Amino acid sequence: MPKKVIAVLRGDYIGPEIMEAGLTVLEAASANSNFQYETIDYPFGGEAIDKCGDPLPQQTVAGCEEADAVLLSAIGGPKWDNASKRPEKGLLEIRNKLGLFSNIRPTKIDPNLSRFSPVKQEVLNNTDFVIVRELTSGIYFGTPREQHPQDALDTSTYTVQEIKRILKIGFDMSMRRKKHVTVVDKANVLATSKLWRQVTEEIKQDYPEVTVDYSYVDAAAMKIITQPTSFDVLITANLFGDILSDEASVLTGSLGTIPSMSAGTTGPNLYEPIHGSAPDIAGKGIADPISMIQSIEMMLRESFNEDYLADKIAKAVQKTIEDEITTPDIGGTATTQEVTANIVKNLKG
Amino acid sequence: MPKKVIAVLRGDYIGPEIMEAGLTVLEAASANSNFQYETIDYPFGGEAIDKCGDPLPQQTVAGCEEADAVLLSAIGGPKWDNASKRPEKGLLEIRNKLGLFSNIRPTKIDPNLSRFSPVKQEVLNNTDFVIVRELTSGIYFGTPREQHPQDALDTSTYTVQEIKRILKIGFDMSMRRKKHVTVVDKANVLATSKLWRQVTEEIKQDYPEVTVDYSYVDAAAMKIITQPTSFDVLITANLFGDILSDEASVLTGSLGTIPSMSAGTTGPNLYEPIHGSAPDIAGKGIADPISMIQSIEMMLRESFNEDYLADKIAKAVQKTIEDEITTPDIGGTATTQEVTANIVKNLKG
Ligand SMILES: CC(C)[C@H](C(=O)O)[C@@H](O)C(=O)O
Ligand SMILES: CC(C)[C@H](C(=O)O)[C@@H](O)C(=O)O
Repeated sequence: MPKKVIAVLRGDYIGPEIMEAGLTVLEAASANSNFQYETIDYPFGGEAIDKCGDPLPQQTVAGCEEADAVLLSAIGGPKWDNASKRPEKGLLEIRNKLGLFSNIRPTKIDPNLSRFSPVKQEVLNNTDFVIVRELTSGIYFGTPREQHPQDALDTSTYTVQEIKRILKIGFDMSMRRKKHVTVVDKANVLATSKLWRQVTEEIKQDYPEVTVDYSYVDAAAMKIITQPTSFDVLITANLFGDILSDEASVLTGSLGTIPSMSAGTTGPNLYEPIHGSAPDIAGKGIADPISMIQSIEMMLRESFNEDYLADKIAKAVQKTIEDEITTPDIGGTATTQEVTANIVKNLKG
Repeated sequence: MPKKVIAVLRGDYIGPEIMEAGLTVLEAASANSNFQYETIDYPFGGEAIDKCGDPLPQQTVAGCEEADAVLLSAIGGPKWDNASKRPEKGLLEIRNKLGLFSNIRPTKIDPNLSRFSPVKQEVLNNTDFVIVRELTSGIYFGTPREQHPQDALDTSTYTVQEIKRILKIGFDMSMRRKKHVTVVDKANVLATSKLWRQVTEEIKQDYPEVTVDYSYVDAAAMKIITQPTSFDVLITANLFGDILSDEASVLTGSLGTIPSMSAGTTGPNLYEPIHGSAPDIAGKGIADPISMIQSIEMMLRESFNEDYLADKIAKAVQKTIEDEITTPDIGGTATTQEVTANIVKNLKG
């Protein structure tokens, strides 16, 4: 089997710290296995602005396109607040260039961590849902987008084809879960939302076993807090997905542990923690590496069908959390390196 | 003093039930006071579709325009799901016709009710913030809005003048509160948001005592749950305000008690509960009337400078809540009428 190629974008502030941790765990987990890989670093985000004057240099696009998967750590931060092209622009562009039209974010309550949730235990119960966010269209990419001295405008667009392919991702996922899809929109106001509903009515014919309902985005923002157990798979447009997936993430009480996946049709998937680059704790050695490590677990499962290795990592992480060898964000006193070393130890155990 | 005229839009499902309760309390509170008023009913929402084939008949617009304040109860519901023009359309139109460009929603934790919140007590503490939502522009009203067989588009627009006037409402409000304004936007993506930031930088010069910060809408959606006490006045665009104010409302644990105000420049303000028409409990006599009663309290304060009457109502409501004479949504077993009667009794006490 040829070696798999993993493009590594180490990111800014805590980015490189947690990427290092993740790669250490990947190396330990795959040692003596059949899974052969090599990693290639590319500049991206703030780092790339400093080195190449562009958050997404051409070489990075090319490298990612050729890779079998992309690992990204958090990017951006105050250092580049006044850059003419900011790190976040790179994030939007890489999604577009790699055709990563779907973003998958699990919200699953870990009983060992739920005490850190701002939400009451009896509300959380065994919450387990996934938000499927459309990632390369909508108001993020619609034109015209114009700013004039006296006014500004943004345009949100969706084509039937764009809606169809993201719905399919969500419906397929629900078939491997609780067979319940909630399409979140603002169909009482927006034309694009009305089109989403129309296409959903069509697509759902192909999934007779799936229960489908609709929720307005404002109602969904409430229900995510009040009845999180009522959801299985939420499918929604780019902007709504941005807001709701961040909202949902805090339910877990452990932002520093949550991975995500962005996927397209043919190219490599991209895996990244859902949190930011945390400039306030950068360099202190206390960033939680688990989000990056679980992003790598997700990569092994989804891009490489290495469920065995992924399960091994999942178990090792779980044991570390149970033993409370954790960073301060989830109540512990361990450093990034100590958490990582403990997970590596558990891999062998 | 000439009589004040209050336009009354009784709404659908539980709408008329709680409006009746509210008007009963208004009558009792203002008896033997100098506050003279008359109410005039107009058809609106589902009721108006049934009676006139239009959720916002011309007579209702005219009547509201002439009134000194408008009281609205909840509208809409399954009965009109397939109406060619749905009740919600009437809501959007009345905002537009009356020039109600600002929507004010307080999120204040009542210690007597916070046990019903899905969020932990130690996170809520004494949360007390207001969301100031722009209500007559943005993606709700931008053109073009088009739906075609293969695609659809919505347009979000803001002018400097529209941004300025809503910012002023929020900044002025913060001066009577904790002098802290948070402008919520998506300036890392949207041109309209960038314009909001630019105008904010200008306006804030006029309010040297106010601390101003910015939050991306996704981050704000998290912080509303994790650190609700960090906010004072949030000012934001129409769509973001819709989502965040509904999200924030659940923190209180008592959706059935929260009022709101929509205001413009010259015409009457409109007061309404923040919740919907609750078809599931309509006709059962158990709808919580407190949201409507507190909407009336807000009207007395903001439209009529009747702080004395407003305070009287506030105290009576507070005592009823303390005595746990409440409807099932906030843990009690009382009916709408019993709660109302108790509040009326407390007004005299
Ligand atoms: C940085 C920003 C442009 C980005 C987005 O809004 O998509 C981020 O919030 C995310 O969700 O990945
Ligand atoms: C009914 C709907 C159009 C409306 C809105 O989105 O403005 C409602 O959600 C609200 O917040 O008053």
